[in-house]
Formats: sequence, C-alpha cells, structure tokens
Amino acid sequence: MSRFELSILGCGSAFPTTRHLPSAQALAHNGRVYLIDCGEGTQLQYRRSGLKLGRLQHIFISHLHGDHCLGLFGLLSTLGLYERGGEIVIHAPADALRIFPPILESFCHDLPFEVRINPIPTNHSEVIYDDKAVTVRTLPLKHRMPTAGFLFEEKEASRHLLGDMADFYQIPHYRRAAIKAGEDFVLPDGTVVPNDRLTRAAEPPCRYAYCSDTMYNEKLIPLIEGVDLLYHEATYDEANAAMARKVYHSTARQAAEIARAAGVKRLMLGHFSSRYDDETPLLREAQEVFPDTILANEGLKYSF
Amino acid sequence: MSRFELSILGCGSAFPTTRHLPSAQALAHNGRVYLIDCGEGTQLQYRRSGLKLGRLQHIFISHLHGDHCLGLFGLLSTLGLYERGGEIVIHAPADALRIFPPILESFCHDLPFEVRINPIPTNHSEVIYDDKAVTVRTLPLKHRMPTAGFLFEEKEASRHLLGDMADFYQIPHYRRAAIKAGEDFVLPDGTVVPNDRLTRAAEPPCRYAYCSDTMYNEKLIPLIEGVDLLYHEATYDEANAAMARKVYHSTARQAAEIARAAGVKRLMLGHFSSRYDDETPLLREAQEVFPDTILANEGLKYSF
Repeated sequence: MSRFELSILGCGSAFPTTRHLPSAQALAHNGRVYLIDCGEGTQLQYRRSGLKLGRLQHIFISHLHGDHCLGLFGLLSTLGLYERGGEIVIHAPADALRIFPPILESFCHDLPFEVRINPIPTNHSEVIYDDKAVTVRTLPLKHRMPTAGFLFEEKEASRHLLGDMADFYQIPHYRRAAIKAGEDFVLPDGTVVPNDRLTRAAEPPCRYAYCSDTMYNEKLIPLIEGVDLLYHEATYDEANAAMARKVYHSTARQAAEIARAAGVKRLMLGHFSSRYDDETPLLREAQEVFPDTILANEGLKYSF
Repeated sequence: MSRFELSILGCGSAFPTTRHLPSAQALAHNGRVYLIDCGEGTQLQYRRSGLKLGRLQHIFISHLHGDHCLGLFGLLSTLGLYERGGEIVIHAPADALRIFPPILESFCHDLPFEVRINPIPTNHSEVIYDDKAVTVRTLPLKHRMPTAGFLFEEKEASRHLLGDMADFYQIPHYRRAAIKAGEDFVLPDGTVVPNDRLTRAAEPPCRYAYCSDTMYNEKLIPLIEGVDLLYHEATYDEANAAMARKVYHSTARQAAEIARAAGVKRLMLGHFSSRYDDETPLLREAQEVFPDTILANEGLKYSF
C-alpha cells in the first residue's frame, strides 16, 4: 500500500512554455495534502489533479522567485471563497515575512481563515513541521537566493498486531496499544506470549526529498540518504553545465550523482529549462549515472 | 479586411474552473498588441494564442481584483528574459501606484525595461492612450472597487486615393497627402478636378468596448454607441439577478439590454461564473434581447 501520493502540478523553470508550468507539487498523505511550491497556475493544476482544496493547510515555499510562489495569492483568494476557518500556514524563507503581507493585504483581504507565515531556515536542516503522521525538515540548497528543499518523513508506525493471533489469544482491546508498542502478552495462566508472535514490524517510514532550485550540492547527500523518492532539479544537460553553474542550477547528470551518492531508491528529474522540447536526453544522461530515474511531467501522479 | 483581432485568453470569473481562466484579452491592431486585464495564467495563454510578446507594450488593467491582474508579475518577469529595452506601460486605477511597485521590486527586479504605471480615471471617460493608429478611452464601470472599462477606437483614416485616377491625371507624389486629406487637384491648364473624383472615403474607424467587471450601468450606453464589438460581462443569468446586484455584476440579459440600447454591432458575453458548466442558457437569455450575441471562450480569435 502506498503512503505518499505525489502529484506534479508544474515542473518547468521560470520561462513558461506550452509544455510545462512553473514549479508546484501536491504531496498527499493520510488524508492531508501538503503543497510544495506554488508557481503561477497552481490552483488550476491542483483542481485538475482531482485533489480537494479542503485538505490543504500547509504550503511549503522553497524560495521567493516568482516561478515558485506567484500562484500563492490566487490560490489563497480561491480558498477564501470556500467556507473554512482555522489557518493556512506558509512555510517559507524569512523574506516572505516582509514580501507577502502587503500582497495578501491587497489581493486576499477578508479571508475567512488566518494566514500564518512560518519563516524557515535555509542554511541548515531543521524540523519545521510535525503532525501525527509526518515530519518535514528543511534541506539547505545552493541557489541565487536563500532556498530550502524539504524532506518529508513518515513517522515510525507502531508494530502491526496480527488479527488471527489477537483472536486466538483473545487479547482484550485495552491491551492492544501496549502490544503494538512492543510489549509481550501474558495469558491468565501466566504463560508469556512473546511480542514477535503477536505482531510484525511496521513498514519502514517512507521519505520524500524535494530539492529545487539548487546547484550541485554535496552537503545534501547525508541528509537525503536512502529516501524513497528524490525530486531533484535538472534544469540543464551537461552540455550546458557552465550555464547551470552560472545561474545556480543543476544538470541532469549532477542530479543523478547526488541520487547515486545518497543511495536513494528513485530519482525524479524536474524544473526543466524551456530550451528542451523533449527531456529524453536529460533522462538518458541521468540514467547513465543512476538508472532508476524518471522524468516529472504535469499530471503525473506517483505513489510510493 | 479586419482591423482588430481580439484573442480571448481568459473569460471566467474569480473562482477558477477547468473550463475558464481569469480575465485577459489580447487586442492586436496594426502590428501592436494591447493586453486587456491580466489574470493568473495570462502569459501562458498569450503564448498559446501565437502572438509575439515583443509586440506588447501597453497593458490595460480594469481593476485591482486578483483575477484581473495577478498574472502581471509573472508576465513582466518573462518579458524581462527577452532582450528588450524601452518601457512597458501599465494603465490601471490609481491604487496600482501603491500596490504594484513593492511586488515588482520583489519579483520583477533587474528588468531590462522600465515599468511605468499610468493611473487612470474610473469615474468618467477620458483618453488615456493614443498612438498613430488607436485611441483608448476609459469607460466608468460600477463595481465593488474603482473599475474602468476601455474603448479602443481606430483613428479616422485619410481618404483613399484611387490609383487609376492618380495615374490618369499624373498626380505628383508630393501632392498626394494633401489630396488624401481632402484637397482638389488643379491641372496645368487650371481645370479643377474635385476631390471626390480622385478619392473615396476611408472605412469608418473600428471600435471595441471592454466592459468588465460591472453591474448594469446605463451611463455606459452613450459612451459605447454603435461600437463594432462590445465585450460585456455576464457573470450570472437572470435567475441570479439579486446575486448579481449584490456583488456588482451583470446578468446576460442586462448585458444584452446595454448592447441593444447602445445599438452596438455585436455583443460578446464573458466573465462567466463557475456555476455554469455550459453557458448556452446565458447566450439564449441575451439573444432574446439582442440577437447578435456570441459567447467568449478561451482560444477564440475574433476579427472585426
């Protein structure tokens, strides 16, 4: 059973094309949707993805380039047309505290909910969000302005109680939480049934790393080791490596080198330059280094 | 030969749907493109329309609701990726002087051109733009905030010199401008050839009126009398007339009443509420009052 479902809403770079939209992703988990970046057009793509806007409460903005956040104000206005209270939290680099409020004031006044901006660190990894199912940490990226990636980690689940064993030993409901947490069960006659006869280990927690925009940055490697999916920007191919370095972006090969060094399970490339009419060469370039690579595309839903 | 070509880039209202985008239109005339409103997603729609961004210099914003201007900042950023100098002029209600500069500062810095904001009146009709081919006047609209419509008028063209007559009388080139302006031609023997033997009247100037957003407003009627095309918002149908009045919008029937009273040549309805999956009922409602009515739709190109 998959735990995360990632919907790619936009995976182009700043220069828009008819093929790709600016950056945005919706990560669904356990009934919640986390929005990652919010380029122009995100609200429409979100709607097209079939996800419910009512499930969205936390928005994670990697950096304050327009192609990663200019869809925010239209999206919030639209959310305001729904009857919902509470708060929407925008996790974003600290400059958002200065830049967003006047725009919200002009275009998103009279919202029925609070908008809270949570300033996030961009030069080290830190937990910025935590709910009962998921923890989100920043990943320090190297771009032309303060930029953070995001690591989404499922919480360690409790052990899975085997239904037939629970029935066989007639384990009362009030004991089950403790057994899932690892305790043995003692029968009325004093016999100890060891925990590993009653339960099996939960699936290991699932992890997703979003790294865009960034130049090649080895400091990421230990932070994203073994993640189930790494989304890494691959704005250019190796033929444009000098250009990539100049504008603080990565090549597809560099993304694959990070994926290989971190031993991730799968790499997804995105944030494609408008110069490519077809990203297959980027895919091939990455697969030479890290075979388990796929291309992002608008409309793609990826479950893991 | 048509003079104006109107491309509908978006004709939905604030609540986005998968059928309609927020307001934006591109009006092409004589090699220039005038952009009217600029909702989220405009730059992509502009690109899809096949128009050249290089032809765009003047942007007309009716009012400062997000669905009419939130696409501006992404569009300007993209224009900045092209090598172009000069200036881009945003004609918009005066609050734009306060609201736009900080957003431009944050998301559109280092543009290779100047962005000039031209504050426009919203409570009377006044010429706000004028080039050698076209004049643009504001139209006072009644909405929840200061809002202007726009009347695009071709300039009166000079009379058309008939080629065969010019040859027959051997009219020298240096005399032709005066004859096109209405002068007679005097032959070497003193004979006067009257102007109407040498020329015919130019086609009457073509006019386009954009009226969105507005509630029913009879003051518009004399200002748009006889225009070749009237785009009038028709957010609701008559069954929702009370709602329309409450939120300062029009019904399709009201749009048609304005069109009939002003004796326009054709009416185009737009700014549709998201509640309609099909706008045919709006069209029928308007056609009962004003038969020459059509529906706007994204991708529509209308020449007149």
